[in-house]
Amino acid sequence: MADLPTREDKFSFGLWTVGWQAVDPFGTATRAPLDPVEAVTKLAELGAYGITFHDDDLVPFGSDDTARDRQISRFKQALADTGLVVPMATTNLFTHPVFRDGGLTSNDRAVRRYAIRKVMRNMDLAAELGAQTYVLWGGREGSETDAAKDVAAALDRYREGIDTLAQYVIDQGYGLRLALEPKPNEPRGDIFLPTIGHAIAFISTLEHHEMVGLNPEVGHEQMAGLNFVHGIGQALWQGKLFHIDLNGQHGPRYDQDLIFGHGDLISAFFLVDLLENGGYEGPRHFDYKPLRTEDSEGVWASAAANMSTYLLLRDRVRAYRADPEVQEALVQSRVPELAVPTLSPGESVADLRADRSAFEDFDPDKAAERGYGFARLSQLAVEHVLGAR
Amino acid sequence: MADLPTREDKFSFGLWTVGWQAVDPFGTATRAPLDPVEAVTKLAELGAYGITFHDDDLVPFGSDDTARDRQISRFKQALADTGLVVPMATTNLFTHPVFRDGGLTSNDRAVRRYAIRKVMRNMDLAAELGAQTYVLWGGREGSETDAAKDVAAALDRYREGIDTLAQYVIDQGYGLRLALEPKPNEPRGDIFLPTIGHAIAFISTLEHHEMVGLNPEVGHEQMAGLNFVHGIGQALWQGKLFHIDLNGQHGPRYDQDLIFGHGDLISAFFLVDLLENGGYEGPRHFDYKPLRTEDSEGVWASAAANMSTYLLLRDRVRAYRADPEVQEALVQSRVPELAVPTLSPGESVADLRADRSAFEDFDPDKAAERGYGFARLSQLAVEHVLGAR
Amino acid sequence: MADLPTREDKFSFGLWTVGWQAVDPFGTATRAPLDPVEAVTKLAELGAYGITFHDDDLVPFGSDDTARDRQISRFKQALADTGLVVPMATTNLFTHPVFRDGGLTSNDRAVRRYAIRKVMRNMDLAAELGAQTYVLWGGREGSETDAAKDVAAALDRYREGIDTLAQYVIDQGYGLRLALEPKPNEPRGDIFLPTIGHAIAFISTLEHHEMVGLNPEVGHEQMAGLNFVHGIGQALWQGKLFHIDLNGQHGPRYDQDLIFGHGDLISAFFLVDLLENGGYEGPRHFDYKPLRTEDSEGVWASAAANMSTYLLLRDRVRAYRADPEVQEALVQSRVPELAVPTLSPGESVADLRADRSAFEDFDPDKAAERGYGFARLSQLAVEHVLGAR
Amino acid sequence: MADLPTREDKFSFGLWTVGWQAVDPFGTATRAPLDPVEAVTKLAELGAYGITFHDDDLVPFGSDDTARDRQISRFKQALADTGLVVPMATTNLFTHPVFRDGGLTSNDRAVRRYAIRKVMRNMDLAAELGAQTYVLWGGREGSETDAAKDVAAALDRYREGIDTLAQYVIDQGYGLRLALEPKPNEPRGDIFLPTIGHAIAFISTLEHHEMVGLNPEVGHEQMAGLNFVHGIGQALWQGKLFHIDLNGQHGPRYDQDLIFGHGDLISAFFLVDLLENGGYEGPRHFDYKPLRTEDSEGVWASAAANMSTYLLLRDRVRAYRADPEVQEALVQSRVPELAVPTLSPGESVADLRADRSAFEDFDPDKAAERGYGFARLSQLAVEHVLGAR
Repeated sequence: MADLPTREDKFSFGLWTVGWQAVDPFGTATRAPLDPVEAVTKLAELGAYGITFHDDDLVPFGSDDTARDRQISRFKQALADTGLVVPMATTNLFTHPVFRDGGLTSNDRAVRRYAIRKVMRNMDLAAELGAQTYVLWGGREGSETDAAKDVAAALDRYREGIDTLAQYVIDQGYGLRLALEPKPNEPRGDIFLPTIGHAIAFISTLEHHEMVGLNPEVGHEQMAGLNFVHGIGQALWQGKLFHIDLNGQHGPRYDQDLIFGHGDLISAFFLVDLLENGGYEGPRHFDYKPLRTEDSEGVWASAAANMSTYLLLRDRVRAYRADPEVQEALVQSRVPELAVPTLSPGESVADLRADRSAFEDFDPDKAAERGYGFARLSQLAVEHVLGAR
Repeated sequence: MADLPTREDKFSFGLWTVGWQAVDPFGTATRAPLDPVEAVTKLAELGAYGITFHDDDLVPFGSDDTARDRQISRFKQALADTGLVVPMATTNLFTHPVFRDGGLTSNDRAVRRYAIRKVMRNMDLAAELGAQTYVLWGGREGSETDAAKDVAAALDRYREGIDTLAQYVIDQGYGLRLALEPKPNEPRGDIFLPTIGHAIAFISTLEHHEMVGLNPEVGHEQMAGLNFVHGIGQALWQGKLFHIDLNGQHGPRYDQDLIFGHGDLISAFFLVDLLENGGYEGPRHFDYKPLRTEDSEGVWASAAANMSTYLLLRDRVRAYRADPEVQEALVQSRVPELAVPTLSPGESVADLRADRSAFEDFDPDKAAERGYGFARLSQLAVEHVLGAR
Repeated sequence: MADLPTREDKFSFGLWTVGWQAVDPFGTATRAPLDPVEAVTKLAELGAYGITFHDDDLVPFGSDDTARDRQISRFKQALADTGLVVPMATTNLFTHPVFRDGGLTSNDRAVRRYAIRKVMRNMDLAAELGAQTYVLWGGREGSETDAAKDVAAALDRYREGIDTLAQYVIDQGYGLRLALEPKPNEPRGDIFLPTIGHAIAFISTLEHHEMVGLNPEVGHEQMAGLNFVHGIGQALWQGKLFHIDLNGQHGPRYDQDLIFGHGDLISAFFLVDLLENGGYEGPRHFDYKPLRTEDSEGVWASAAANMSTYLLLRDRVRAYRADPEVQEALVQSRVPELAVPTLSPGESVADLRADRSAFEDFDPDKAAERGYGFARLSQLAVEHVLGAR
Repeated sequence: MADLPTREDKFSFGLWTVGWQAVDPFGTATRAPLDPVEAVTKLAELGAYGITFHDDDLVPFGSDDTARDRQISRFKQALADTGLVVPMATTNLFTHPVFRDGGLTSNDRAVRRYAIRKVMRNMDLAAELGAQTYVLWGGREGSETDAAKDVAAALDRYREGIDTLAQYVIDQGYGLRLALEPKPNEPRGDIFLPTIGHAIAFISTLEHHEMVGLNPEVGHEQMAGLNFVHGIGQALWQGKLFHIDLNGQHGPRYDQDLIFGHGDLISAFFLVDLLENGGYEGPRHFDYKPLRTEDSEGVWASAAANMSTYLLLRDRVRAYRADPEVQEALVQSRVPELAVPTLSPGESVADLRADRSAFEDFDPDKAAERGYGFARLSQLAVEHVLGAR
C-alpha cells in the first residue's frame, strides 16, 4: 500500500479535474456540477496541499459582480478553513464561442483584446490568492487549414500577447511567473507551440523571457509520441520547468487525461525520478479527468489514486537509486562518464584538432567492441517498477 | 505537365538519396553502388543545381589517403564539368558501430572526441568545395531506456560539441553556418532534439547561436504528427531556417523518405507557398529514398518526380495567390487582420486596461456570431491543388 | 470548377453533420440547432440525393409521442417535397449517460436490453422511411482499463446483440441490411471492433452473417494509421462494403471529421477510383463535421465542398484510367499480372512441387534485376491528382 | 527477484532474435554472427524450452546441399543435447531482393511460385523437426503507392498461396497448423492484413480455414495504436490464437522489438493475465531484438530479461486474481454481469420486444446514476503491477 499523502508532498489538483462533468464529443454530462467549496474540502481531506482553477471554473462565465464576489468569498473561506493553497491559476480562453479561432491569436483583433483583458482580470485574483504561477494554455490558438493563418503574424500576436501580460504582472507588482502549456492538437487541428520545444523556442524571443516558462503535461507530449522524460529534462536544463501537469495517456490519440501512471508506467517511474532528483521544487499538479463512467465516489477514488501512484513510484525510485547493483550497472553503462566534458580542462579546439589519439590513432572498430549494458540497466529499472527488488 | 527544372530553381539532392542501395531493416541491397561522378552527371542532366553528401558517401569509411584524394578529385572534376555546386555537406555519425550510442552524446568520451574530429575533417572538405551550410543530424544521439542517459548531461555534451564545432568554423574562417536536423526517433528509440521546436530552444543556449540554425525534414516532423508548415513558419519567424529537407511521409510510422508530395499533398502545397513567399532563399533539397522496388531507371524517374512535383505545386500556389476569389476569401476570414497589432500604436498596457470597449462593454455573444469562413478558404486551396480553378 | 452534383451521384449526409452545433471537449455550441426540415431542404438544393439520421437527431431523446409524431411527420413531408431519400438510419447509443459503459456490451444487463430496444424502435422508423441499410456504431462499446471488461464476454454479448437485431429485422420483414462501423478509440479509450478487419472477423461468427456488413469511415481507419483504400479493398473483396462514411483526417489524433479530401488527398483519389471502379453501388455518404469556427453559411459551403471534391476527384480518376501512359506504366509495373493465378490451370500442388523451373532452376538474383516502376506510376497518379496531365 | 524459468514455462525464442547482428536502416552490424548451435546451448542454459527459425536463419540463403545438411545436422544434435524443442518455424520471404514486391502477392508471378516453393521446402524441415506451427509473416506483401496493387487481385493471390500451402501440409500429412502474422507497415509502406482483425477476416475465406490461425505480435498491433489485449481476446474468442510473439513497443513508430514489458507495462500485465487464464496453451515466444548498443553479454542479459519479466508479471497476476478486494471490486464494477446473456433463457426477440420493463418503463436517468467503479479497479491493477499489494 502507498503512504498517505501529506502537505509536504505538494500535491495539487485543478478545480476542473474533479469537477469535470464528463461532457465529451459524443456525450452529455454524467455528473452534477461540483461546488468549488466541496472540492477544496474533499481534496484537503485526501491529503492535497493545493488547488488551481480557470477563472470560469470558480465563477461561471457571465456572472455579475455580486455573484462573483460571493463565490470568491466562499472559496477563500474554504481555503482558510482547510489550509489549502492556490499555487497556480489560469484563464479559460477556449470554452466560449467567441474564442473559437483563438484568444491571443484570433484573426479577430477585438477578440484578442478581450482575451488579454480576461487574463488580466484573473491575474488580479490569482495574485490576491497568493498564486506564484500563471498558466496559459493556448488550446484554441491554431488552425485546421494552413490557409487560415499566416504563421509569422500569429506568432507576432502571440508574442505581443505574452509580452503585454508579462508587463501587466510587472506593472502590478504581482510576482507571478507565466507558464505556457504546449499541446500538439485538439481542440484545434494543429495548435501553435505544439511541444515543450516549440514553446521554449518561442519564449526565447519574448521581452521578459526570464519570467516565462512552461507547464508541460504528460499526455500532451505523448500525443505527439514524444518522450516526456526527455522533454522535462530539456525544460529543466533550460531553467523553464515552472509547473507540471501529471496524468496518463496512451500515445497518439485524443487527449485522455488518465490518472497519473495509468498510461505509460515505466515513463512515469523515470519522470518521478527526474522530478525528485532533478531540482524541481514546484507542485505535483494533477491535470486528469475522472472517467466518464464514474460517479462522485469514483471521482474521489481517482483523485486519491493519482497521489498513491506518485508516492508508490517515489518509493520505487528511491530503492532504485539506493540499489548497489543499479549503481554498479550505471557505471558499467558509463552513464556518469557523460557528465565529463568532452574536451579536457583548458583544451582548446586547436588542441583537440592536434590530438592524434582522438582521431588518427583512434581505432573505431576496437572502440566498438564493448557493449553499453543498457539491456541490463533497463531490466533493473523495470524490476524496480514491479517492486521486485 | 510540369516545366523542366532549371538551375535557378535551386534543386539539390543528397548523394545518399539517389545512391541509396535499399538496405532496410528486413532486406539487403537491391541496387548496386552508385559512383558519385555518375550521380553528379545524371542530376545535372535532370536539372538539379546542387549535390550534397556525408563524408562517407563520397569517400568510403576507412579509405586511405590515396583513395580519398582520388575520389575527391574525381568528384571535383565532375562538379567542374557539370557546373553543379555543393551547397551543403554533413557527417555520417551513425553507420559505424562505434557510434551506436551516439556521436556528440555517446556515454563514451573517446567516441565523442572522435566524432567531433570526424566532423572537423569533413568541414575542411565542405569549405574547400564552397558549401555554405553544414548539417548535423544526431540520429544516434538518444536512448531506448531513460535509465541510459542523464538528459542534462547529454544536453551539456551536445552543446559542448556544437560550440566546439562552431568555434572551429570561426577559427578556420570557413564561413559555414551549422544546421541541426531534428528527428523524434529511429534509429534510436527517442532522439534528443526531437522536433524543430526542441532544436531552436537548444540553439538559444549556444555560445555562437547566431551561426546555428536548422535543417528540418518534412517526414521527421510528420513522424510526430506535427504540422510541418507551422514548424517551418516558426523556424522562419525565428530566423533559423538555414536549409530544408523535402520529402514525403504518411504520419507516425517508420521514416519513409517518399518523393516530395507523395505523402500529404495539401501540406506540400502550403509548404511551397511558404517557401516561395516566406523569405526562404536557400536550396530546395530533396532527402528522399527511391523505393526499394526500383532499379536505376526508377531511381532517376523518382529524382525527376521530386522536382516536377515541386514545380507543379509552385504553379498552383501562384494561381492560388493570384485568384481574386481567394484574395476576397482571405479578407472575409480576416487573415490579414492577424497582422495588425493587438494594441494600438502608442497604447500602453494601462491604456488597454482602461479601455472599457475591450472588456466591460464588449459583447462576446455578439462577437461570436460571425463565422470565420475557413471551410470556404480551405476548399479554395484544395481546388487549386487539384488544378481545378 | 467542379460539376454540380446531381441525384445520380448518390450523395447523402447525416442530419448530425450539417446539424452539428459544434460542442467539443473544450467548448460549447457555436451554432443554433438546425431544424431537420431545413437540413432536408438545403441539402436537396445543393444536389444531395439522401439524408440519414440517428433516432435522436430527428426526435430529441425523451420526446413524448405527440412531439415525436409531429417531428416525423414534418420530416416525411420535407422528404416528399424535395424528393430526398433516406438510404440509411442508425441509433444513438452514446450520448445519454446511461450508455457510458456501452449499449450492447455494457456491464449493466438492463442497459443492454434497453439499448437493443432503442435500436428496434428506430429500425421500425428506418423501414417505414424506406432505408436499405441500418448502421451500428458502437462508440461506447469498449473500455479505458483492461480490468473493466472480459473481452470474450463482451464479444459474446456483442454477437448476441447483433444476432437479436438481425432476427428482429427478419421477423419484421424489414429488408434492412446491418452495417457495423469500426473505430479504434474515442470516446472510449479502446473500442471493440476497432478496424474494418476486426469487424469483418466478428461478422463471420454471426448467425445471420450474410445480412451484416460494414460502414467504414475514412477517418476512423486513418486514426489507426491504416491505409483506408486497402481496407475498403478488403471489405469489397469479402462482400462486406454495405455503406461508407467519407470524410478527412490527419492521422492518429482525435476524430477530426474534416471535409472529404481535406486530409490525405492522394488517398482520397485512390478511394474514389476504387469506389467508382470496384463495384460499390451504394450512397456516397459524408460523415463530416463543419468546423466549429463556421456559421451557417460555412456549414453549407462545407457541405457543398464534400460533393465538389468528390466530383473533381472522379474527373481526375477517369482521366488517370484513360491515360495511355498510365495504362502502359501499369503493364510495366506488372499490375495486371497479379490477376493471373499463381498456379497454372489444372496444376496441382504436387505439380508445382515438381516444377524445377519454379525453384531449383529459378535464379533469384536474375529475377531481382528488373525494377517494378512504382515510382513512375506513383508520380503519374500524383500528376493526375494535381490536374496536370 | 523473479523465479528462474523452467521448461514448463514454455518460453521460446527465434534464432533471429538473439542472433540479430543489429543492422538497422542507418547502421551496419555491431555483433558477429551467432552460431545456431551456440544459440541453442545458451537458451537452454537460461531456461528456455524452445527455439524457432526462418529457413535462412539456420541455413544461409544460397547454401549448397552439403553445407545445408551439415548445418541441419549440427542443429539437430544441439537440440538432442539440450532437450530444446522446435515448436514453430517460418520462412524468410523478405530479405532477398527478389521478394522486394512481396512473396505470395508479388506482381511477378514467377516470384510467387518461387515463394510458395521456398515455404514448402522449409515446411519439410519444420515437420521433420517436430514443429506444430508454421508462421507466415507477409512483411513484403503490400505497397507504397495504391497505384501499384489491385487489392482484390492481391487478396486472391494471398488466398491462393495460403490455400496451396495448407493443401501441401495436408498432402504430406505434416500436421502443421499455419499462423499468419499481421503487421500494419514496415518494411512496406502499407502491408496487407495489417492487424489481427484483418487477418482473421481473411482466414474466414480460406479453403482450409480451420487449420489457419494467427501469430500476433505485441509491437505490431501497438504500431497501429491498437489495444493488444483486446486483439488477443478477440483472437482467442474466434479460436485463432495459434502462437504469439511477445515483445515491447512505444506506440506508432518504427518496429522496436523491445524486451517484453519494456514498452507498455500495464498492458503486458493484462496480457499475461489473459494468456494464463484465457485458455492459451502454446509457447510464450519472444520476438524481440537485443538493442544495437549491446554486445553478446547484453544479448543474453536481454534474453533472460524477457523471461524474468514474464514470470514477475505472472506472479503479480496471480496476486491480483487472488486479492479479495479485487474480487469485490470486479463485482462492484459488474464485470461478471457481462457474462450473463442479455436475453433471458428462452426469451424470444418478440418477448424482449414486449417487455415494457426493458424500454417503456425503464428510466435511463435513474439507471445512469450509479457509477461503474472502473477508476478503483484500474488503480488496484496498477498497484498489483507495482508489487504494492
